[in-house]
Amino acid sequence: MARTPYDESAVQAALARLPGWTYDPQRPALQRLFVFADFSAAFGFMTRVALLAERMNHHPEWRNVYNRVDVVLTTHDAGGVTELDVEMALAMNTLAGTPAA
Amino acid sequence: MARTPYDESAVQAALARLPGWTYDPQRPALQRLFVFADFSAAFGFMTRVALLAERMNHHPEWRNVYNRVDVVLTTHDAGGVTELDVEMALAMNTLAGTPAA
Amino acid sequence: MARTPYDESAVQAALARLPGWTYDPQRPALQRLFVFADFSAAFGFMTRVALLAERMNHHPEWRNVYNRVDVVLTTHDAGGVTELDVEMALAMNTLAGTPAA
Amino acid sequence: MARTPYDESAVQAALARLPGWTYDPQRPALQRLFVFADFSAAFGFMTRVALLAERMNHHPEWRNVYNRVDVVLTTHDAGGVTELDVEMALAMNTLAGTPAA
Repeated sequence: MARTPYDESAVQAALARLPGWTYDPQRPALQRLFVFADFSAAFGFMTRVALLAERMNHHPEWRNVYNRVDVVLTTHDAGGVTELDVEMALAMNTLAGTPAA
Repeated sequence: MARTPYDESAVQAALARLPGWTYDPQRPALQRLFVFADFSAAFGFMTRVALLAERMNHHPEWRNVYNRVDVVLTTHDAGGVTELDVEMALAMNTLAGTPAA
Repeated sequence: MARTPYDESAVQAALARLPGWTYDPQRPALQRLFVFADFSAAFGFMTRVALLAERMNHHPEWRNVYNRVDVVLTTHDAGGVTELDVEMALAMNTLAGTPAA
Repeated sequence: MARTPYDESAVQAALARLPGWTYDPQRPALQRLFVFADFSAAFGFMTRVALLAERMNHHPEWRNVYNRVDVVLTTHDAGGVTELDVEMALAMNTLAGTPAA
């Protein structure tokens, strides 16, 4: 189920398909910093992620400073990382132009 | 000057650097249809163009239906195509992933 | 059903709740021109409609020139105006600050 | 000049016109948390601020989680709060629907 939190080994298996992402077991959450050429590229990316987030009804925690977008993905009501986060992380890599491994 | 309209030969010279664009001498204006993979790609493009338009204080006429963005560029207060339109058309091609010729 | 086209009387009943919208029986489609203070207001509106469109998987036909957004709503695969269009038109009025009648 | 940092009393005078904003003398920077009805409202606001940021060539540090947008404004190359930050904070209040005091 999408809302069942991954255990440690499931997270590690997912990370193998998620270049650039790391796991923070404290939250727990997935994290990645995206760096773009400029603000326009960063905000264009954010807009496409926003469209996806509304479609999935699953939203990132993110911080933007000019060309940088720092993302944290977790499923609050599941208390951990779920399939929703992995799906969104994969999509973010595609939208940012980072091919999945 | 940015606001001086191009004559026919200047427009033709500019079009050589603007793959995909055509000239409508009736308006007069530059025109191009951009076709993307889906709505998300189209609207991500539009957002980046919107950021540029505000920075340049020069705005496109455009029509969007799902993955298609039909653009008309003209400089209303100059009554024709100016350097502003050519600059924006070049930037749109770059943002859409079409390398300048 | 969302995808069943409205007949003329159902459209007229819907229009009573949709100030600013008109019906074009030729398409058939709902139409409205939104006029904002400036480009920023127009594009902020378009962004919120884009988010909704992805969530509904139903997209407008629209044309933007600076502070104007001209919208046409129809459900292509139903060949007419459906509940999806009425729902989107109501939402657009709310997002544009026009209270539903 | 826009790029001259405000001293403490100038910041305090500016804050009188900036309901909701506080001053962090450590950065130094202006800060405000905006809370919206939902993600759509938050991201619509962010899009309009992004358009302004590109026009001003001055960008916020901001963090978004669903309906919340936490903003930090500072002028990095001036090492403090300048007229650019105050202008942007005033504009953000207007865009968020908070009338200036």
